[in-house]
Amino acid sequence: MTETIRLAHGSGGEMTSRLIKEIFYAAFGGDVRDANDSAVLELPRGRTAFTTDSYVISPMFFPGGDIGKLAFCGTVNDLASVGARPIALAASFIIEEGTTFEDLRRIAGSIGEVSRATGIPVVTGDTKVVDKGSGDKVFITTSGVGSIPDDIDYHPRNIRPGDAIIVTGSIGDHGYCITALREGIDIKSAVTSDCAPLHGLVEALWPFGAHIRAARDATRGGVGMVLNEWAMQSSRGILIHEERLPVKDEVAGGTALLGLEPIYLANEGKMLIAVSPEKAAEVLDCIRAHPAGADAALIGNTGDDKPRVVLETAWGTQRLVPVPRGEILPRIC
Amino acid sequence: MTETIRLAHGSGGEMTSRLIKEIFYAAFGGDVRDANDSAVLELPRGRTAFTTDSYVISPMFFPGGDIGKLAFCGTVNDLASVGARPIALAASFIIEEGTTFEDLRRIAGSIGEVSRATGIPVVTGDTKVVDKGSGDKVFITTSGVGSIPDDIDYHPRNIRPGDAIIVTGSIGDHGYCITALREGIDIKSAVTSDCAPLHGLVEALWPFGAHIRAARDATRGGVGMVLNEWAMQSSRGILIHEERLPVKDEVAGGTALLGLEPIYLANEGKMLIAVSPEKAAEVLDCIRAHPAGADAALIGNTGDDKPRVVLETAWGTQRLVPVPRGEILPRIC
Repeated sequence: MTETIRLAHGSGGEMTSRLIKEIFYAAFGGDVRDANDSAVLELPRGRTAFTTDSYVISPMFFPGGDIGKLAFCGTVNDLASVGARPIALAASFIIEEGTTFEDLRRIAGSIGEVSRATGIPVVTGDTKVVDKGSGDKVFITTSGVGSIPDDIDYHPRNIRPGDAIIVTGSIGDHGYCITALREGIDIKSAVTSDCAPLHGLVEALWPFGAHIRAARDATRGGVGMVLNEWAMQSSRGILIHEERLPVKDEVAGGTALLGLEPIYLANEGKMLIAVSPEKAAEVLDCIRAHPAGADAALIGNTGDDKPRVVLETAWGTQRLVPVPRGEILPRIC
Repeated sequence: MTETIRLAHGSGGEMTSRLIKEIFYAAFGGDVRDANDSAVLELPRGRTAFTTDSYVISPMFFPGGDIGKLAFCGTVNDLASVGARPIALAASFIIEEGTTFEDLRRIAGSIGEVSRATGIPVVTGDTKVVDKGSGDKVFITTSGVGSIPDDIDYHPRNIRPGDAIIVTGSIGDHGYCITALREGIDIKSAVTSDCAPLHGLVEALWPFGAHIRAARDATRGGVGMVLNEWAMQSSRGILIHEERLPVKDEVAGGTALLGLEPIYLANEGKMLIAVSPEKAAEVLDCIRAHPAGADAALIGNTGDDKPRVVLETAWGTQRLVPVPRGEILPRIC
């Protein structure tokens, strides 16, 4: 018989302890004898980045990853977005009664795998169980702390006129992959979710110091949403060039068919970087030299003091890229 | 018409921004123009406590609090359990489509209220929306960071033979209150959830240094579960005296009726403290002098090297207090 999660696994008693030991400690490492209510860390001196995100993606498993890998990488990337080196993560699970141990083990295994690959430990966590119909299999909330070097300050408020906007690779892969999966579209080629940790790529940019103005992983709402937030937060217009946007052929074709725009599709392994014009070319080379940034492109520049995003097409016409409205794609992350 | 949460509120676009601004920034303080993927903190030097917990309590509103206050206090108390002063919290919301703005505003308002009262800010967060039937109104995951003074090290591994066990007040109030509410029992007297932040109480014990061995808020699984964990983690037996357990009359009567034991019921504003025998009386006085600890009691001591919990009744007979098994009370926190 398939072993499944029961309400008793969330009661805080013997079955909760066993679940934590057999699934989570087994995957992440750690010892139940050391468990305490909080992890105790020795953080490097200086500023600390602190972030949290919940993951509710449906389906939980997809080409290129699953909700566990997504949750881990998402929090790593949120730390990297402020220039931090991730130090430790926390993972809290809300599990629906009836979820199989097999699914849970697979998800925990993915987290363990990326944790070992990156050397970033999961140091604390929590498990709650909700009755059938009050959840949807597994929701994960990851939080993280990271250490920011003294000379690093990435924030959209630092963006100045003429700054270059770089995207670290092809856009829309994650959003297209999940949509295609839901719509039953046969993904023939290599388009999988781009779900990946980007802290190494950002660390490679540390030597550029204040020339890097801002960084942001373009998840929900895509590149379109981040650029609008940056325009608003910096009180600057941003002009991007359509033909410079790196979009895989299959994503371009598939999204056209589905009536979606790659610029609004979620990415889970792509960063937007705002950089001073003097260092733009050098930074682009540096990103391209990194395994996670081979397809990076300089897509545009900041301009006048009208906080809006404008896209110039290959024919030279311009159109506004508004803040996305409406549903876009529910439960994409 | 009652305004309710729609899937579009979770899409990361314009409606998400509006929700965050109108509900969360309005309640917690903060400015959307400052928003970034991670909060940036200047933590005091020394060790940092880091913790996370998800809250799925049903019903969301109860006498003495709601899921928002519970989530905030729970994370504060997890930080306090390792002796830390809470510095900042993060709050991530998973909201079911159809949840009313009114409920959400009330929950966010509770968090804002306890945040202002304690001076502990909510510095970052996240909002996800799931389709109707894939969640249950509101789930909250709170995470926190805190600063641990250099001479403080609270961990069950420090527990030694003969140490005194103190509970900071009446046990089972939260668990009984929620159960009574679910069972439709009319709570006539003043039994409400004991949901409260305990960091101030723990800070008052800092001067006792290493005489305080361990602290733990006795939530899910109650005092019975924490004592069993301590017995296991310290490889020590613990003997407690039934007549010394502070239980409110109504909780004693009500739980007898429901076939529940107060020792296994969740508390949300009670700490267990293990303290050296030399300082036990002084620590008890100190706790009782604090507004959150007026009903504190010394309930027992650690003993031999058999890791188990034994309860001595008023008649002098002894029985084992095993690790709780089975469902106990689902979704109690």
